[in-house]
Amino acid sequence: MSRFLNERFTKLVPYVPGEQPTDMSYIKLNTNESPYPPSPKVHARMTAGEIDRLRLYPDPLGSALRAKAAAVYGVRPENIFLANGSDEALALAFMAFCGRRRPAVFPDITYGFYPVYCALFDVPYETIPLRGDFTVDIEAFCGVGRNVILANPNAPTGLAVPVSDIERIVRSNPDNLVLVDEAYVDFGAESAVGLIGKYDNLLVVHTCSKSWALAGARLGFVFGQPALIEDIDRMRYSFNSYNVTRQTLIAGEAALDDLPYYTQMRGKIVRTRERSAAALKALGFELTDSKANFLFARYPGKSGGELYQKLKALGILVRHFDKPRISDYLRITIGTDAQMDALVEALKRILEK
Amino acid sequence: MSRFLNERFTKLVPYVPGEQPTDMSYIKLNTNESPYPPSPKVHARMTAGEIDRLRLYPDPLGSALRAKAAAVYGVRPENIFLANGSDEALALAFMAFCGRRRPAVFPDITYGFYPVYCALFDVPYETIPLRGDFTVDIEAFCGVGRNVILANPNAPTGLAVPVSDIERIVRSNPDNLVLVDEAYVDFGAESAVGLIGKYDNLLVVHTCSKSWALAGARLGFVFGQPALIEDIDRMRYSFNSYNVTRQTLIAGEAALDDLPYYTQMRGKIVRTRERSAAALKALGFELTDSKANFLFARYPGKSGGELYQKLKALGILVRHFDKPRISDYLRITIGTDAQMDALVEALKRILEK
Repeated sequence: MSRFLNERFTKLVPYVPGEQPTDMSYIKLNTNESPYPPSPKVHARMTAGEIDRLRLYPDPLGSALRAKAAAVYGVRPENIFLANGSDEALALAFMAFCGRRRPAVFPDITYGFYPVYCALFDVPYETIPLRGDFTVDIEAFCGVGRNVILANPNAPTGLAVPVSDIERIVRSNPDNLVLVDEAYVDFGAESAVGLIGKYDNLLVVHTCSKSWALAGARLGFVFGQPALIEDIDRMRYSFNSYNVTRQTLIAGEAALDDLPYYTQMRGKIVRTRERSAAALKALGFELTDSKANFLFARYPGKSGGELYQKLKALGILVRHFDKPRISDYLRITIGTDAQMDALVEALKRILEK
Repeated sequence: MSRFLNERFTKLVPYVPGEQPTDMSYIKLNTNESPYPPSPKVHARMTAGEIDRLRLYPDPLGSALRAKAAAVYGVRPENIFLANGSDEALALAFMAFCGRRRPAVFPDITYGFYPVYCALFDVPYETIPLRGDFTVDIEAFCGVGRNVILANPNAPTGLAVPVSDIERIVRSNPDNLVLVDEAYVDFGAESAVGLIGKYDNLLVVHTCSKSWALAGARLGFVFGQPALIEDIDRMRYSFNSYNVTRQTLIAGEAALDDLPYYTQMRGKIVRTRERSAAALKALGFELTDSKANFLFARYPGKSGGELYQKLKALGILVRHFDKPRISDYLRITIGTDAQMDALVEALKRILEK
């Protein structure tokens, strides 16, 4: 730390992303990436001409991509904000809408970046404990009178709530914003995007990192009424106007052009999830009913940290959070069937010892 | 504006980037892009395998690119921060080091984003007027006792100061940070990167948007002592950990691998600048002695806004800033020789009328 850092940040504890080994020797089940590549249409659009055009700035409006996303999601372009990954979308939304006098609330167990944003932007926050079975206490969020941040499906539990529950929270907090982080929604949960026309206090955040196989391209969407989108845009134009690269705009367009490919890909991941969940249960693991592209599992009597370490020693990376209530658990990204078979085999070996 | 926007931002006036027309019908001399494409080595690295690997997050440490940049710039990897364009670098640096009790100072005429960052992060700032000839009043910045933000060459004037002047400012403000924004340094000015080992209060910001022909890829570098770099990294990991895409990391590496190409490209741009400056002087324009990849020019008795509009009507985009002291001027990016010939011809036609 330098002596020039603003006092406000000297105690800031940043988010710690999952390990990203630069060699390819691990079976990488730790950051919820897709085991399958992006659509062939993405390849087709990455022409030599596009590489030459890297000399030019991207379209800061992202007009072509927003038009395409509007058609796919059944909204209008002015309902869409394009971000450099959903983390940037969340950061800009926290910056725009939360603050000392606009506190936030989210579950005690959820995406670990939310409290970091609160610390960064000086936002007082409360957490509402998940129930014993890790389900969200919907009643507790109704009429809570703060900006509500809710991941659906939640991370790292994978548990989803129906849109009717989201709508109750939105309707009962008319003077606060409800931000629904749907990073994992495409693997079997219900999206709240269809509600944005009805409520001026709803923002829905999507990422292309998981169900669009574009983690490396950094692309996220925010859906909401135009006034909210304009506010986030105001933050962007005051922070980094050109936040999405030319190649990423193109990759996004190409991906949105190939829904059949992604529907098939997601179906495959969901089937592998169910198959892997059954295999882990057969080994004696306890699992949540994940609707995401990961499993959340513990083995009674074994520490999550120990299992994580032993898997790593066997060349398999999963994610372990050393946090209250979930330190016994592993979050395991759904890989290919072969990768999941290798995981199950490795766990078998570890447990037999 | 929504009713949910934080009160702090309701009067925030964002930066307005130059027009980015999505059609290609203009001669585009308005946002200081390179008229030449990135190195062939960038093409060579954009393989199908890399597109498949977009399913994976980028290396958040950017280790390979930082190692390469360290070698090219004669520093160590821990002296380098990688940003999603230099605007993001500046935003994160303002966030980290400026604040209510850490005010800033910069020239009255400079990059228009600096006051926006101050407004966004609630940073009190002063401006020090450029002299009548638009040169920086170095004495006024010496011992000024605030964080100094200095673009060198300055924008939109194009005027550069020698590194010895930068060093005087750095040395005379030991308890404040000096941030030198060298976006345009590769077109004929002296870089202060060589000073970072000597001073713990110096940050130097570079962009790959101009002299590396990668505006569309969004890549910027910050050079400084490790403690400063760690501080900016702390901001990044609290805002958006994966800020640079996989393809951009690769494009950056490939570009840094081809210094001969870029040396030649910059030389060509500098020669075109000198040739175009002479042609405009011959038409009666007054110009600053620009060391950047743009000219800053006015025609006595003609309004800059009028010339801008008339050029646009003829299919040529330049930049006009409707601001005190410089509203008579045009900022004209250096294009190819043919583009600059077309510009000179168009101006001739406009002036003859």
